[in-house]
Amino acid sequence: MKLHGYFRSSASYRVRIALNLKGLSAQHLPHHLRKGEQRDPAYLCLNPQGFVPTLEDDSGAILIQSLAIIEWLDETHPAPPLLPKDPLERARVRAVAQVLACDTHPVQNLKVLARLREIGVPEDKVTAWAASVNRDGLAACETLVAGEPGPFCFGVRPTLADLCLVPQLGNARRFGVDVTAFPRLLQAETAAKAMQAFADAAPERQIDAE
Amino acid sequence: MKLHGYFRSSASYRVRIALNLKGLSAQHLPHHLRKGEQRDPAYLCLNPQGFVPTLEDDSGAILIQSLAIIEWLDETHPAPPLLPKDPLERARVRAVAQVLACDTHPVQNLKVLARLREIGVPEDKVTAWAASVNRDGLAACETLVAGEPGPFCFGVRPTLADLCLVPQLGNARRFGVDVTAFPRLLQAETAAKAMQAFADAAPERQIDAE
Repeated sequence: MKLHGYFRSSASYRVRIALNLKGLSAQHLPHHLRKGEQRDPAYLCLNPQGFVPTLEDDSGAILIQSLAIIEWLDETHPAPPLLPKDPLERARVRAVAQVLACDTHPVQNLKVLARLREIGVPEDKVTAWAASVNRDGLAACETLVAGEPGPFCFGVRPTLADLCLVPQLGNARRFGVDVTAFPRLLQAETAAKAMQAFADAAPERQIDAE
Repeated sequence: MKLHGYFRSSASYRVRIALNLKGLSAQHLPHHLRKGEQRDPAYLCLNPQGFVPTLEDDSGAILIQSLAIIEWLDETHPAPPLLPKDPLERARVRAVAQVLACDTHPVQNLKVLARLREIGVPEDKVTAWAASVNRDGLAACETLVAGEPGPFCFGVRPTLADLCLVPQLGNARRFGVDVTAFPRLLQAETAAKAMQAFADAAPERQIDAE
């Protein structure tokens, strides 16, 4: 498989963790987002959004959107599972993942922050925007997993929720958010980061890391 | 079941369509987003994001996040299916749904537009922002479904992709986007709107419609 990504992209990071947890290897093809390489016409043929990640499987099938890719990986390589079996528990895990992957990350990604600058928003307000979006999303997740057994978001194994959480906490810190307000999420992050699959997926461990 | 929603909320609209397609009835509990009713403390206990929709099932289980709710409905009430059986086809449907539900709708929802106004962005640029976000998302979807058989996004039956598309096209028009640029999506919308399940879920047919 080939994974088109970027070391600092949260969405790529989620998929890297999933591949590692499943024991799957992929050739990593970096696209430098800050240099606009994701808007290269050849890449847009693979991913019409001009976003990363894109996964090409060995049959040549092209997959986009990190959550769709991870669910596909989970359906085609079921061990270890990234979602519980019970429908209601699955919905709870997906809800946390979606708070982060729908309502948090896309509202503070590179493209949105660039749009803010383009319409004249000053840099301090751009950073405050990103921090506030991260704070809102993480606060909701802290409440959603507060009553769940640990150490991960949902029990003793990582799920899709943890795959979204770890990259998002990294973003939050980069924007100056005080993440000590989220002790339950930090517990999950600590458990996750102790696993090789998460450690190897970290931005600073990627071939395109700066 | 009880569905907490708002007539004009795209995310609530998606879930209303899913319930109708599954032949399930729910008591509709409106929360007026423009009046801030979603931030009522009692509602925040159900949905810590202060977003709609929230679904309460008959056992008292609380579900949030529209895509998680719809996948749960599809897993617990499999007929008619809202996702194909084949993993790769499922991934394609989910990808289109996520282009809209992750990268489009959350970047132009009421909360984000209010944030833009708060930091001093003038109204014409707020509208231009929302239009541009809709245009980008829909353009990507037009490309993603261009090669798929119609009339729906993926074949002869509505899927999760159509449930996200129909509300998003409504938003796009509200922000002045020329949707004739997306003929394949309009074909899917026409097929969807001819179904009673979609028609009955439309914002103007809800008890809280203004």
